[in-house]
Formats: sequence, structure tokens, C-alpha cells
Amino acid sequence: MANSRFEYVKQFEQVDNLLPNTWIVVRIDGRGFTKLCAKYNFEKPNDRRALDLMNAAAKAVVTEIHDITIAYGVSDEFSFVFHKSCTLFERRASKIVSTIVSTFTAYYIHLWSTYFPDTPLSPPLPSFDGRAVCYPSVQNLRDYMSWRQVDCHINNLYNTTFWSLVQLPPGMDAKAAEQLLSGTLAADKHELLFSRFKINYNNEPEIFKKGSVIYRDYELVEPGNHDVAKTADELAEAVRQSKTQDDKDKKRRAKAKVLVDHVDIIKDDFWERRPWILSNKPGKIPKET
Amino acid sequence: MANSRFEYVKQFEQVDNLLPNTWIVVRIDGRGFTKLCAKYNFEKPNDRRALDLMNAAAKAVVTEIHDITIAYGVSDEFSFVFHKSCTLFERRASKIVSTIVSTFTAYYIHLWSTYFPDTPLSPPLPSFDGRAVCYPSVQNLRDYMSWRQVDCHINNLYNTTFWSLVQLPPGMDAKAAEQLLSGTLAADKHELLFSRFKINYNNEPEIFKKGSVIYRDYELVEPGNHDVAKTADELAEAVRQSKTQDDKDKKRRAKAKVLVDHVDIIKDDFWERRPWILSNKPGKIPKET
Amino acid sequence: MANSRFEYVKQFEQVDNLLPNTWIVVRIDGRGFTKLCAKYNFEKPNDRRALDLMNAAAKAVVTEIHDITIAYGVSDEFSFVFHKSCTLFERRASKIVSTIVSTFTAYYIHLWSTYFPDTPLSPPLPSFDGRAVCYPSVQNLRDYMSWRQVDCHINNLYNTTFWSLVQLPPGMDAKAAEQLLSGTLAADKHELLFSRFKINYNNEPEIFKKGSVIYRDYELVEPGNHDVAKTADELAEAVRQSKTQDDKDKKRRAKAKVLVDHVDIIKDDFWERRPWILSNKPGKIPKET
Amino acid sequence: MANSRFEYVKQFEQVDNLLPNTWIVVRIDGRGFTKLCAKYNFEKPNDRRALDLMNAAAKAVVTEIHDITIAYGVSDEFSFVFHKSCTLFERRASKIVSTIVSTFTAYYIHLWSTYFPDTPLSPPLPSFDGRAVCYPSVQNLRDYMSWRQVDCHINNLYNTTFWSLVQLPPGMDAKAAEQLLSGTLAADKHELLFSRFKINYNNEPEIFKKGSVIYRDYELVEPGNHDVAKTADELAEAVRQSKTQDDKDKKRRAKAKVLVDHVDIIKDDFWERRPWILSNKPGKIPKET
Repeated sequence: MANSRFEYVKQFEQVDNLLPNTWIVVRIDGRGFTKLCAKYNFEKPNDRRALDLMNAAAKAVVTEIHDITIAYGVSDEFSFVFHKSCTLFERRASKIVSTIVSTFTAYYIHLWSTYFPDTPLSPPLPSFDGRAVCYPSVQNLRDYMSWRQVDCHINNLYNTTFWSLVQLPPGMDAKAAEQLLSGTLAADKHELLFSRFKINYNNEPEIFKKGSVIYRDYELVEPGNHDVAKTADELAEAVRQSKTQDDKDKKRRAKAKVLVDHVDIIKDDFWERRPWILSNKPGKIPKET
Repeated sequence: MANSRFEYVKQFEQVDNLLPNTWIVVRIDGRGFTKLCAKYNFEKPNDRRALDLMNAAAKAVVTEIHDITIAYGVSDEFSFVFHKSCTLFERRASKIVSTIVSTFTAYYIHLWSTYFPDTPLSPPLPSFDGRAVCYPSVQNLRDYMSWRQVDCHINNLYNTTFWSLVQLPPGMDAKAAEQLLSGTLAADKHELLFSRFKINYNNEPEIFKKGSVIYRDYELVEPGNHDVAKTADELAEAVRQSKTQDDKDKKRRAKAKVLVDHVDIIKDDFWERRPWILSNKPGKIPKET
Repeated sequence: MANSRFEYVKQFEQVDNLLPNTWIVVRIDGRGFTKLCAKYNFEKPNDRRALDLMNAAAKAVVTEIHDITIAYGVSDEFSFVFHKSCTLFERRASKIVSTIVSTFTAYYIHLWSTYFPDTPLSPPLPSFDGRAVCYPSVQNLRDYMSWRQVDCHINNLYNTTFWSLVQLPPGMDAKAAEQLLSGTLAADKHELLFSRFKINYNNEPEIFKKGSVIYRDYELVEPGNHDVAKTADELAEAVRQSKTQDDKDKKRRAKAKVLVDHVDIIKDDFWERRPWILSNKPGKIPKET
Repeated sequence: MANSRFEYVKQFEQVDNLLPNTWIVVRIDGRGFTKLCAKYNFEKPNDRRALDLMNAAAKAVVTEIHDITIAYGVSDEFSFVFHKSCTLFERRASKIVSTIVSTFTAYYIHLWSTYFPDTPLSPPLPSFDGRAVCYPSVQNLRDYMSWRQVDCHINNLYNTTFWSLVQLPPGMDAKAAEQLLSGTLAADKHELLFSRFKINYNNEPEIFKKGSVIYRDYELVEPGNHDVAKTADELAEAVRQSKTQDDKDKKRRAKAKVLVDHVDIIKDDFWERRPWILSNKPGKIPKET
């Protein structure tokens, strides 16, 4: 081929395959979303439409890319988890990250008008960056997920209190509200919300307090039957199962409904009742009722 | 902070900064565009609307991200070049790649209806993947660009001939056309196009034959004055110029028109007349006429 | 400091920290040992002095570098295992690999005259290369160790048979021996050794059949008490224990005798009776008898 | 092969090839040499035997590994430079670094008794660690070399003055000497050396002031003929020359004397008169006189 003289430049591509047998987390973050929130008048402290749009885009990503076992989102960020046995794109980091970021962005832009029908997009458009991190053990992975959900909780409690002070009568200026909250503990903020504004933080919407968890929905399992985390950790490599079994799994995954949930993912209960997330073995499709 | 128990998971993030003083090329590719072309009935061998959409999205990327000095696109791929002195995102590969891919995707989806007003998008949406490659010398970078443009030429000549055989009377079936072309040289294809269909390949549109080059437009320079490539290669590191000069450069870059061009980038002429691409020093804004 | 003008070159150093919470295996290999064996007349198929020298050097490495929990050697290679909680040199790959390789080489050269008193070294001197590999789970690590020991077995059975054919009367030439062995199974080689040379392979020295395992020696534990592998896999990060406990562990490690053993490390028994290897908690120093 | 069940563990090896067309510098450093200096009573501020041993080991490394074009050493460190066209071990970082470190260590231990005939080595033995860094341009490489030589100069001037204050009559204690030197400039130290001890720093041995440069010796070239640095930078890839030419080059390299020199490598002169270092084309073997 006449092209051969220049083809040596391919040698400069460097390999970036992620370590096998580790959980891959791709986290994406909105770029310059502070400006974006102002530009499109997002409500403070939480804009429900914006969160629903994030969730819709993430749900489309999970639906399209079967290798994702669970995703967790809060504010303008979303984390997508690939099972440690995943071999998508030979685990090349840039392929995996760019595919997730691009697919998410495509749906975010495409679905914008559904959630913001009266607010057309204009340049610069919303965009996201992303990175991949590997976690060797189930405990590491769950600690990562807990880290994000605790972050959600801390930020939301702070923001709810801060914006109540600023937005609700008598209305404080931002600086004064910041100073008032400086050094307060969670209990102080709960108390302040209730005594000043009759707001019981526990009654706030779960989507604000817990963030959003996205996963395939199968029949829940009674906890205590067996320890999925341990079993998962012991796996040495991608279990080599028959092509027939692979195809069956694929079909079951494709059939499963993808769910957007707002629940605690820090405690064991969530994971024990949904063993398919850590085991990567699709569960039973629940009967329609 | 209450979050500290889980925060150790941040240690698992691995550094991916690209080697300083090298040219960074981010190439993005359409994912599954063969299916996409069929789904949306793209014209063969080239769909002008699809190419114009690619170029519009790429132009928006170059306009928004000032660190890009030149971009080159063909078919469903685009390569974005960052000057070797670029320090954007501390040269972190995943940040750079994901930002480019996301921004490109956002404009591609957003502008779709402009170029395909009668063809609404539906899931699965178009998406792109990307990767970054470093090139140490100007020669390496130019060889990379030449590689892509030669590829454009080879593919377009083949596709033009193949689809003429298939689409133009008398109309051959695909397999027969493939066999006919197997082993032919460029001259054979030129001849075949002319003798059978009176098509002079040289008169085909430049955008098909040369692909698309995107860069900031300043006054052209007489070639031969000095050797920008050599000067660029000798630079040891990001030239440390005054903050004032930096700001001036920034403004001039922001003012410059971003151009979509269809020209030869293999020969020296293109680069010698546009020294700002390799030098990263903005040129003179051309007078309006 | 006057040096600052050139100091920017430090920025070109790229980070190579190994993923936390994974087992690090550094394997070193003799460079050009085929030539070396010929030059110094190593006995075939195994030179006991050469193996003892390898083991002595490896033992010195394990003794000096407390972070190594176990090492396994065969022929001219040795694998050194660092516990997954190890933080030596911030887990920088080049630091870890180069330190192991250098320390090993130093002892190999220094101790040469002890094992080859009549054969002085001359240039080119023996040297070794090395690389680090991370294994996320205990099962992966044990499979790695098993891989090396199975390799030892396969090679030694082949070499023992081959060299018997060549060296023992009537004496075959190398090519004929190779052809004779081509396609034979293990059982065939056992049979051949016994029928032709009255050699019962099972009676061959353990060091040749099993290779060499090096570890700190504590009191053996009754197997079945608890599952160290599972416990190890569940650990999320380096257990944060008190400085006092750390110092105690260090002293116990320093006191422990480093053992060179020739035993099966594929079956569970070895690991269950020596839980300190996977747990990284020093055991009881055995009473002198 | 019976081994296949475990062989999957090979997949965990991660690729670490260094970027093509960049200069590779492998720097090795003595581990714990402060203790070592004390243990073996190295003279302060410079122990000539120790430096000669370092140089002898480095010379052996350069002689054995033909791909090294130049090496520079000072104190207990040595930097080995591979030409940017080098393809040794497919440029795998761990292979290159470990080979250099191991070969250097082997000679250091082996030659110890030549330079310290009355001081036998005892455990823990001297050892070295190492790392590889890539430099894209000749200017980067030369700045790296200059950085090390400036460091040599700064440290040696300080150490010479400090140890004169401590060792020569009337003899100051270390703390007082440190305080006296704190904040002094180069000129102050020169003055102090001369006024107090009649030492003209410029007359100190070149090996102490300049460090040691090691390279193959060919006929010097008149400077100004052509610009090797520029030519080197322009090279796009390993020049593909005929096998015959390769073999000729190899022979000339093998024939060339390896020189240990103590000269300025910061100024252009050194490099211009020895174009073979940057061009990687062996020069003329000088006539014996």
C-alpha cells in the first residue's frame, strides 16, 4: 500500500489496558457546570429537571452498554461500574472512558429539550470529562460507592440549609449564611432547618438525599444465603462459561428493565438482595404484576 | 470530615500525564458508523451533509478549545493536534481525550437537525471514541497528518470507483465490483472511472479528495523566510513569556476566524505559509476586504 | 539555586506507582545464561552449586527487604512477592524492581566464589533483568506461583530424561534425543527413565523437582482454622494498626529465620499451615530444640 | 501443555514500552550510601577510590551495552543515555532499567577489591536503584546533562569548603561550618577557601569539579561544520539503513575505545566536536600514535 511510508507513526500509540480482574469505575463530571447552572437558571440547591436529565442519560448508557453492572449519580457527576471480569475493548482505558463520556453526552444533549422544553441550548454546550479507576476488591469498590453517597449526603445537607437561609424569609445574604454554617455539625444543621424553617430534613426527597442508583432489575433475593462479595473476590479471572450460557446471559440482560433508584448503597442490605450486581450472573426477571 | 473513612479510595487513581514537549494528537472515531450510515441512509461514497456536520462539530471544538492548533478530518474520524508546549489539564490523557470527545459529540448531536432537518435522531445515538498519541518531533507529527491524508486519498479513490461501478449504469453487484478492483493500482482506477463513466477523478470535490483541515486563519507568510519546523523542534520547553504577552496571544487567538479548508497538508507549502501552526505564535489577523 | 534554569527537566519523570491493594510479584531472570552455563561448565540438567548460589542470593534479598513475604526460584529465575498492603517506595515500579535486581546481583557476584571456589568470574559478568506484575486476588497470586512450579516440573522432567539419554550409556546425540521425546507425555518419560536407566524420577532431589521456596519461618498452624485467603482478599487497604504494633511486627520479622524449602506450593496445605504469608501478620517464633 | 490452566496469569503483565524517537536516560543511584560511606570510611568530601570504582563499573556497562551513547556520573549516581533511535528490548522500561542496574552492580561488586584491596565487603552489600526518563529533543537531553553537571559543581564547591572548615586547622565543628556557609554565594566560598586555607578551587581535580563523562572515542571534528543537534531532532524515526551498514557500525563501535573524561558538557563545544554522540553514527577510529 502506498501509505506505508507514513504508517510507522502507529508505533507511537501507547498501550493503556487496565489491570485484569479489577473493578473498573468510570466517573464523569460536568465541565464548568457552575456557569451552566447560572446560564440556564437551574434551581438551587437541587434542580429536579437537571437531575432527571442526568439520570435519563445515564440510564441510556447502562441500557446500551451491557457490561455496566451499576451506576451511581449525584449532582453533575456519574460513576459507571464495570464488572471485574469485563473484557470490553480489551479493557483499554481510553476506549472505555471515551465511549462512556460520548454516549452520555449524546443523550444529555438529545434529551435536553425533553427536560427543559422552554430553554434551548446554545454554545458553549454542556460537556463532560471522565477517567477510569481500578478497584481490586469488592470492599474497595463498595467503599468507593459509599464515598460518593456520603459526599452526596454531606453536600445536600449543607446546601439545603444554606439555600434555606438565603432563599426563605427573612433571607440572609450568602456570606452571612456561610459564616453561620461554618463549623456546624450535621445535627446542628438538622436543628437549624427545623427550628427556623420547620423543615424536617428526613422528609426531603430521596433523590436529593441519596443520589441515584441505576442497575438491571431482577427478583430480589433473601439476604444471608451466601456471601457474594467473598465469592466475587475469589474469582481468579473471567469465568469461562459456554458460549450458550454467555448468549443466555446476554439475552436476560437485554430483557431486564433498567431501574433508577434512590436508596442506601452503603449498608450490606442493598448488595445482598441484589447478588447479580457483584456476581455478574443475571437474576430472575420479575413477573409482571 | 465524616467522609474520611472512605476517602482512601482516591489513592487508586493512577496518573496519566502525557510526556512534556511532545505533540499531542487526539483522534476520535465514530462508533458503529457502518450501521449508522445504513440507518440514516447516508449517500455513498460520500454524504456531503454528514461531512459538513463532522466539520461543523470539529470547528466548534477548535473554536472552544484554544490549545488546539490544527485539526484534520476524513469520513467519521477527526484528529485534533495540541501544540507540544500545551499544558492544558496538566496534560492528563483522560481529561484531554474525554473533553474533546464530549465536546465533539455534544455539537454533533446538537447540530444534527441543521444538516439532517428531515431525519430525526433516535437511539442508539451517534457516539465517538478517542485516544491520545504523543509525537516527539515536527517530522513525526507531519508524517501522522500525511498518513491520514494519504489514507483519505486511497479510500476515496477506491470508494468513488467502487460505487460508480455499483450505482451507475449498467450497475454491477458489489461482489463483482470488488473483484474487478482487486489488485488495481491508482492509475487503473483513474482510467476505469474515465473510460466507463467519463468521470475525471481530479475534478471530484476537494473535500472528498483531501479531507478537511481546520485551523485559525491569519495572514499567510511567504515561504522560505525561516524554518519553523526546526525552530519548533529545538524548543526545550514551553517558552516562558510574560503574562502580558500570554494575554495578548489569547486575545488574538480568540479573534481569529476558524477556517475549514480542503488542501494538501503533505507538502511543505501548507506549513511554511502558516508558521503559527507549528510555532504556536498567533499571526496577523487578515484585513477584511 | 543557580541550578534552576535546567531543573525543569525533572518534569519529564513519569509516575509508575503500582495499583494499591494488589500483590506485587517481581520476577528476575538471568541474562544470557545459556552462554554463561557453557562458559562456566554448569552441570546438566541441574548444577547444584549454581542453584545453591541462586538460593543464597535470594535468601539475602528476602532477609534484607522485610516487605517480601515469599519468594520462589527455579533455574536462573526468581520471583519475589510483596504483600498487597506493601507501601515500600510508594509502590514505584522502577524503584522496587531495580532494588530487587541490584540487591540480588550484588549477592550473586559476592557469593560466587563461595559456590565456585575454583572458577573465577570474568567479563561479561552474570546479570539479571526484572519486571513487576500486580495480582489483584489471592487466587491470582497462587495461580502465578503454581504456574512457575508446574513449569519447573515440566522442564525438569523433560531435561532429566533428555540428558539421561544424552549422557548415560549408550549415549544418544542431542537431535535424536529430542526426536525421541517429541510428543511424549509425562508418563512416557517416567517409563523411559526407569526402563532404560533404572531411574525412578520420584527419587530425584526435591530441589530439582519442586524448585525453591523462601520465606520466614514461624510455628506451623493446624489447617482448617480459618480461611486466610478469603480474609486477605477482603482487606480493603493496608490495615492501619498502631505504631507500637508495627514496631512489634518488624522486630518479629527481623528475628524470624529465613528458610529455603523445596515443597509443593500448588496445594492448599502449604498456605494454610503458614497463614503469615498471606496475612502479613508474623507468626510465633518456633522454640529452639 | 499441562501448564495452561495457570498460564492466564501472564495476561496481568502490563506493557511499559517507552515512547519512540525520544532520548532515554537511565539514572542509577546508590542506596543508603551515607551509611556505606561511614561503614567503609570513604574520604570526605571525595573518595578517589570510590569514584574510580563507580567509573570502572560504568565504563564496563557502556562497553557491554553498545546502545549507550554517553554516560555521566557524579558522587554515587550515574546517568546512561540511549540514542533516541534505540530499539533495545523494544524500549521496555523495566528491561532496560533492570539490565543497566544489574550490570552496573555486578561490576561494582566484582571490582570492589581492586579499588579497596584492604576493605572486604560485608552484608548489607552496596546496591543501586534506577529509573528511566524520556527526553524528546536534543535541547531537553543537553539540559538534563547540564543539570547534573551544575549539580556536581554546586555540591562539590560546598563540600570542599565545608570539609576544609571541618578538617583543616583550626577545625570547626560541623554545625558551625554549616551556619558559616548558610546563604553564601559561589564567590564567597572561593574567597573563603583561598583566604583561610590558600586553596584555589580552580586547581582542584577535574574529576571532582566536573564529574565523569564516558563515551566511545573517535577522531574529534572541527566544530561549525554542521548542526548535529538540529539534524538529530529532525529525524523522524530510527533511520532504516542497510544490514551491511548496521554491521559496519556495530564493528566500529566494538572497536572504539571507551573513554572516561572530566570535561565541560554544558557548552556546545563538547557536543560539536563529538558529533557521533548525538548522531549515533560512529566516527573515525583515531590513529594510534
